Amino acid sequence: MSNSTNGHGHQPALTFGMIGGGQGAFIGAVHRIAACMDHQARFAAGALSSDPGRAVASARELGLPTDRAYPTWQAMLDAETKRPPAAPGEERGPGHRIDFVVIVTPNHAHHAPALAFTRAGFHVVCDKPLCTSTAQAEELVAAAAKAGTVFAVTYNYSGYPMVRQARHMARSGELGAIRKVVVEYNQGWLASKLEATGQKQADWRTDPARSGAGGAIGDIGSHAEHLLSTITGLELDAICADLTSFVPGRRLDDDASVLLRFKPHAPGAAPAKGVLIASQIGIGHENDLRIRVHGERATLAWRQEEPNALHHCPEGEPERILRRGNAYLCDAAKAASRIPPGHPEAFLEAFANIYRGAIAAMRQGVGGEAGAARFDFPGLADGARGVRFIERVVDGAASERKWTPFHGT
Amino acid sequence: MSNSTNGHGHQPALTFGMIGGGQGAFIGAVHRIAACMDHQARFAAGALSSDPGRAVASARELGLPTDRAYPTWQAMLDAETKRPPAAPGEERGPGHRIDFVVIVTPNHAHHAPALAFTRAGFHVVCDKPLCTSTAQAEELVAAAAKAGTVFAVTYNYSGYPMVRQARHMARSGELGAIRKVVVEYNQGWLASKLEATGQKQADWRTDPARSGAGGAIGDIGSHAEHLLSTITGLELDAICADLTSFVPGRRLDDDASVLLRFKPHAPGAAPAKGVLIASQIGIGHENDLRIRVHGERATLAWRQEEPNALHHCPEGEPERILRRGNAYLCDAAKAASRIPPGHPEAFLEAFANIYRGAIAAMRQGVGGEAGAARFDFPGLADGARGVRFIERVVDGAASERKWTPFHGT
Amino acid sequence: MSNSTNGHGHQPALTFGMIGGGQGAFIGAVHRIAACMDHQARFAAGALSSDPGRAVASARELGLPTDRAYPTWQAMLDAETKRPPAAPGEERGPGHRIDFVVIVTPNHAHHAPALAFTRAGFHVVCDKPLCTSTAQAEELVAAAAKAGTVFAVTYNYSGYPMVRQARHMARSGELGAIRKVVVEYNQGWLASKLEATGQKQADWRTDPARSGAGGAIGDIGSHAEHLLSTITGLELDAICADLTSFVPGRRLDDDASVLLRFKPHAPGAAPAKGVLIASQIGIGHENDLRIRVHGERATLAWRQEEPNALHHCPEGEPERILRRGNAYLCDAAKAASRIPPGHPEAFLEAFANIYRGAIAAMRQGVGGEAGAARFDFPGLADGARGVRFIERVVDGAASERKWTPFHGT
Amino acid sequence: MSNSTNGHGHQPALTFGMIGGGQGAFIGAVHRIAACMDHQARFAAGALSSDPGRAVASARELGLPTDRAYPTWQAMLDAETKRPPAAPGEERGPGHRIDFVVIVTPNHAHHAPALAFTRAGFHVVCDKPLCTSTAQAEELVAAAAKAGTVFAVTYNYSGYPMVRQARHMARSGELGAIRKVVVEYNQGWLASKLEATGQKQADWRTDPARSGAGGAIGDIGSHAEHLLSTITGLELDAICADLTSFVPGRRLDDDASVLLRFKPHAPGAAPAKGVLIASQIGIGHENDLRIRVHGERATLAWRQEEPNALHHCPEGEPERILRRGNAYLCDAAKAASRIPPGHPEAFLEAFANIYRGAIAAMRQGVGGEAGAARFDFPGLADGARGVRFIERVVDGAASERKWTPFHGT
Repeated sequence: MSNSTNGHGHQPALTFGMIGGGQGAFIGAVHRIAACMDHQARFAAGALSSDPGRAVASARELGLPTDRAYPTWQAMLDAETKRPPAAPGEERGPGHRIDFVVIVTPNHAHHAPALAFTRAGFHVVCDKPLCTSTAQAEELVAAAAKAGTVFAVTYNYSGYPMVRQARHMARSGELGAIRKVVVEYNQGWLASKLEATGQKQADWRTDPARSGAGGAIGDIGSHAEHLLSTITGLELDAICADLTSFVPGRRLDDDASVLLRFKPHAPGAAPAKGVLIASQIGIGHENDLRIRVHGERATLAWRQEEPNALHHCPEGEPERILRRGNAYLCDAAKAASRIPPGHPEAFLEAFANIYRGAIAAMRQGVGGEAGAARFDFPGLADGARGVRFIERVVDGAASERKWTPFHGT
Repeated sequence: MSNSTNGHGHQPALTFGMIGGGQGAFIGAVHRIAACMDHQARFAAGALSSDPGRAVASARELGLPTDRAYPTWQAMLDAETKRPPAAPGEERGPGHRIDFVVIVTPNHAHHAPALAFTRAGFHVVCDKPLCTSTAQAEELVAAAAKAGTVFAVTYNYSGYPMVRQARHMARSGELGAIRKVVVEYNQGWLASKLEATGQKQADWRTDPARSGAGGAIGDIGSHAEHLLSTITGLELDAICADLTSFVPGRRLDDDASVLLRFKPHAPGAAPAKGVLIASQIGIGHENDLRIRVHGERATLAWRQEEPNALHHCPEGEPERILRRGNAYLCDAAKAASRIPPGHPEAFLEAFANIYRGAIAAMRQGVGGEAGAARFDFPGLADGARGVRFIERVVDGAASERKWTPFHGT
Repeated sequence: MSNSTNGHGHQPALTFGMIGGGQGAFIGAVHRIAACMDHQARFAAGALSSDPGRAVASARELGLPTDRAYPTWQAMLDAETKRPPAAPGEERGPGHRIDFVVIVTPNHAHHAPALAFTRAGFHVVCDKPLCTSTAQAEELVAAAAKAGTVFAVTYNYSGYPMVRQARHMARSGELGAIRKVVVEYNQGWLASKLEATGQKQADWRTDPARSGAGGAIGDIGSHAEHLLSTITGLELDAICADLTSFVPGRRLDDDASVLLRFKPHAPGAAPAKGVLIASQIGIGHENDLRIRVHGERATLAWRQEEPNALHHCPEGEPERILRRGNAYLCDAAKAASRIPPGHPEAFLEAFANIYRGAIAAMRQGVGGEAGAARFDFPGLADGARGVRFIERVVDGAASERKWTPFHGT
Repeated sequence: MSNSTNGHGHQPALTFGMIGGGQGAFIGAVHRIAACMDHQARFAAGALSSDPGRAVASARELGLPTDRAYPTWQAMLDAETKRPPAAPGEERGPGHRIDFVVIVTPNHAHHAPALAFTRAGFHVVCDKPLCTSTAQAEELVAAAAKAGTVFAVTYNYSGYPMVRQARHMARSGELGAIRKVVVEYNQGWLASKLEATGQKQADWRTDPARSGAGGAIGDIGSHAEHLLSTITGLELDAICADLTSFVPGRRLDDDASVLLRFKPHAPGAAPAKGVLIASQIGIGHENDLRIRVHGERATLAWRQEEPNALHHCPEGEPERILRRGNAYLCDAAKAASRIPPGHPEAFLEAFANIYRGAIAAMRQGVGGEAGAARFDFPGLADGARGVRFIERVVDGAASERKWTPFHGT
């Protein structure tokens, strides 16, 4: 079992400012717990709402000092830029500049602060989807490349240890060439018109102005795409999509069924296929992300609601259930775990693993895709691909032709 | 619990002849057990192979008398037609004509004996798919209508008690209008080129001349289509299919992914959607037929490998697991069960339920769709629809247009 | 997959008479299906109730001919003894003597017909528990030894293929020395005073005059004892029991908790321990027999309600789920299966495996324990041990001393 | 969903010192994460090892300042007592006295610091078992009563939301009178002689001088006792125990099987019974704590490795699976949850719930059992009962009489 300092001597906790995530938000609290779980980061500043008054009130309620309870992210950017950064290895005091920002606003409000903070040299952790257009995504990629900063996108499900084990097995060839991937992300909480009640989470997610062009496909289908890409390394070639708004009057899709074709893994090889289902009208499904990967020699299956287990079916042999925390797992899976087998880890711990990677990259000063790859967290390439995925599915669903290319038109 | 005579006085067992199902066949033995489980039928004659010598040898090995060990189904037809039928209620003696035939040949050899025996006034139980073209299917429908005989198609999974419970719940409106259906039938036994080894089951199933135009879509996708149609009562409007032969050199599909659109359940209502997956390269899946039905108010889920349970998720309430044999089930589910809760029933018992229904129809002399409906077994309408399904999926998979209408072209 | 004739040429079906099992009985119908499933036996005679009128009416309702619808088992014994036996290999006609009797009466009425038919040279299949005292059991053992007939006791759960696989693994040393066994058999159907409603199954099972000294411990605890003995081969050394009648006014135990100590498997070795729980007041448990066997190197777990799976946990490796019908299983498990993996087999098929073994012994003329061992079915030694188990638990529960020796006093 | 500040305005985080839990310890890291998860506490001081040098090195490695990296708990007591406490509502600065201590040493080293810090007026959070004798426990109870401080014992499994739901259902009468409880805690990590390898966790747990008189019964059996007592409210009347050391040369039990009798819930009522199994030689079980509670009208079942689900079986109705985070749960279960349904919470979150309660009691200044009851965490009464439980099981296992009274001798 790894411990919280990775056993290599003390390093002072980094400090962060949060954008969004104030009163009534779900995901802000999750990020604060996840960022701080390993005692490597401290919540130090916030512009917690698009409403300045509410932003300040939320910050005070969460214990931020008055001078860091910012009314807007622009104010936070201005003020923090003026503070001096801590020296490497120095304990962060109240006067030091924050090390990074965490962006947990509705989708439409990711891009502007992400771009501004990146350009100002701050590291960024941004919720998914990264932004609402490929053009925006490319702008962020360029800015981060120029700034050399760390940029993490919280595709948090990739932080699960057993997802990392699945990735190891799929990519090391243990399954043989991958033939078919079935990924589903079903929820039921939008089976009725919750947005009509004013429920905050439902309200913005079903509003194209704030959510972007995708409903379920953006909110959860995007996670499904990331999970399959992370585990398999397959690259999408074309998609065939059917989007539906089952709830009368809803303005965005609440259900998506998508056929997938991947690029051949080798020249001349048969391409893999896939099916992606994302639905928010599946009553009884709470947060049911699951994936099956069928290779030539074995199948893997994993389910987010039972995250400590990975099912491995080698041809002609009994099914095996690999469990988190055991010595027989790959290094990446072991490193992503805090406590012994049978002491279940779950959503928050997986989320914290994304932060653990991003913070390590910040400390080592390894920005961009190099940092994401080396310290094992989703970066801007994942984020940009996710935005393209939403766009292409929305385009494809509107088309009468069967296959919509993933790149090009 | 029902008992094996349905508590209504003794009725003599009917006798049947089998076509196909001799040495090395899997499904012939299944039919013999299923037909006889409730002591309502007796295996009395057979033309058990397309090879006359093997047909006779198989019949002898199975204990049939010499004069009913027929070399061909034509010989059986001739000879049995010449025997006198038993009077109603009379015990069948060795001289009486068989009451029905069971056809368990490869797909291409269903149509001819089915047509001939139907025209000669015999009842027929035929394995699925009914035949290999819609034209053949229509010919059978017409012949049976004219003859007034019973014709059952062994979509055996519809015989499970909990499938009947699901049907009851879906059709009684307990789920609200159905929105989405996801049905999967995954197997792994054809993940490598088993047909190259001479394995008999793999050999004919991958041969277009004997299997028809569909591989996995015909062999198992057809069961999936029937399961969803039976449970939901939804009618297909259009399909969008992707068929693949993953195993190099295989001549038929071994994997199918199909998007489904259904006709609106009421004029102006939003149509339901669906996804159907059928694959025989899914290593680790043995015979993994499963279905989920999402309605406006509840979800149902059932899985063939755990057939005694039906999962019911009403909105806002805990998931419920309904189990076979309990007093809270619908009449059709209770009638399809032989033993108490917790004493699991499985594949053979479900299969026997198809026979139980068909034999009851034969005894009551209620032929055609009326018999199938009244005595609760799949009949020619199911069989013909299944053949069309295979055809339309094969056609659709070859097309560049997205949606292929289920009826019309 | 094995087929129903074991592939070795046709052998005529044996005929049997049934004692008990008429109208309203559950287990009689089960035995009739199980005995006939493989087409190796035919129900030919019956004394189906202790009430002569009801016995005859039940027999007629089940289609037995008038002259074999016996009012009493004594009448059946007299009449069948007078009929000539069929010659070996001869098809049984209506005039031939039955080959064996099946005894499915309440417990108190097993011994007399079992003894009489055995002495008269008939083979016997008797439900469990064998009888109601060790003295009776010894009398049966002696009689069968003298007669040389086959005697099977339907501890039907030992007929499951995966129980046979577990036995193979436990006895072949794959687990290392066995340390601890936990076996539970929980049901909930007697959680309220069902016997007060006149329900037939509850009525005799809670009546000491018909059930014997044990309630739950006899009805289901006895199955649990047999399961653990069969799988592990361990021999009981001492027990420590607590029996309870939770339902007010109930005359027999409806709940049993028993600590077990086994004889050392080798001189000087540490003895294995165990816990046996049997309860009929466990609401929500339908027929929940389950066992875990912990060895020095691995654990096995099996559950009757999911009978096609066996869980195998080798130390330091992932859990494995072995499934019925696969090539990797032992010969005994494969031989006990009729259909391929994923086509679940269940209660009736397992029950039929007991008959398959007993009938094979009858055909080969191998009586007594030799037949039971060679053809793999529970015989009189199992039956007698089961009766002793019930006795010792009842005695031990009444004692203030902690450990009651299994043998001796 | 509750948020991390309980929505009632900001309160400054309390500070704590830790005793034990340095390099190589598992449980120290768990306590640090759990204590800090809700941003209500801060790790500020430590005497992290019984070896002074190691204590200081560990503290430095974890980032504690030099002046709070104590060599011994006595040094920490001296120094912290000299610091001034913060005023209520005041942010804790580096000069303020810690608010509470966390004791995570091996069992034998709980009592002395717990007593000393309690007497000095510090709040205490102590791992279980509380201490190694009833006499010690009573001394702690008396000291805390006198001091009026908060004292929590981390029976962490009672922090799971669904355990609180089970408690609500069992105690509100929803199950009817409880009849039988079966609780098991199985692990496999001590199936071989791990202590001989020097593994630190195994070493002290199998050493009577550090672990106390109980091995598995103390380490995990104690958790099982607490779980059943918490959920049911039943009081033990007598126990009948069998303890075993299966691993040759092991000095303490590694396996326990215990029959339980409870006091009648009402005068004249039939007493409930139970079975408790605790084993550390159950290969394949990782941390498999599970409980079933059978009442007159329903059964509940919960398992630590699937902690987000609670199974509820009402008589005559389908089984229901209640899941964490849903609106249909009781208030205590909802309050113990941080994130929505389907986003699984697990071990660390449950552990943090114990801290959440204890910290709330500290803030409100409600010490002793009143605080434990009002703020829902295990206190000294639980701790003392747990110590008695271990003692009585060890005594009972050594006795030839069947039942050992829980109180008295």
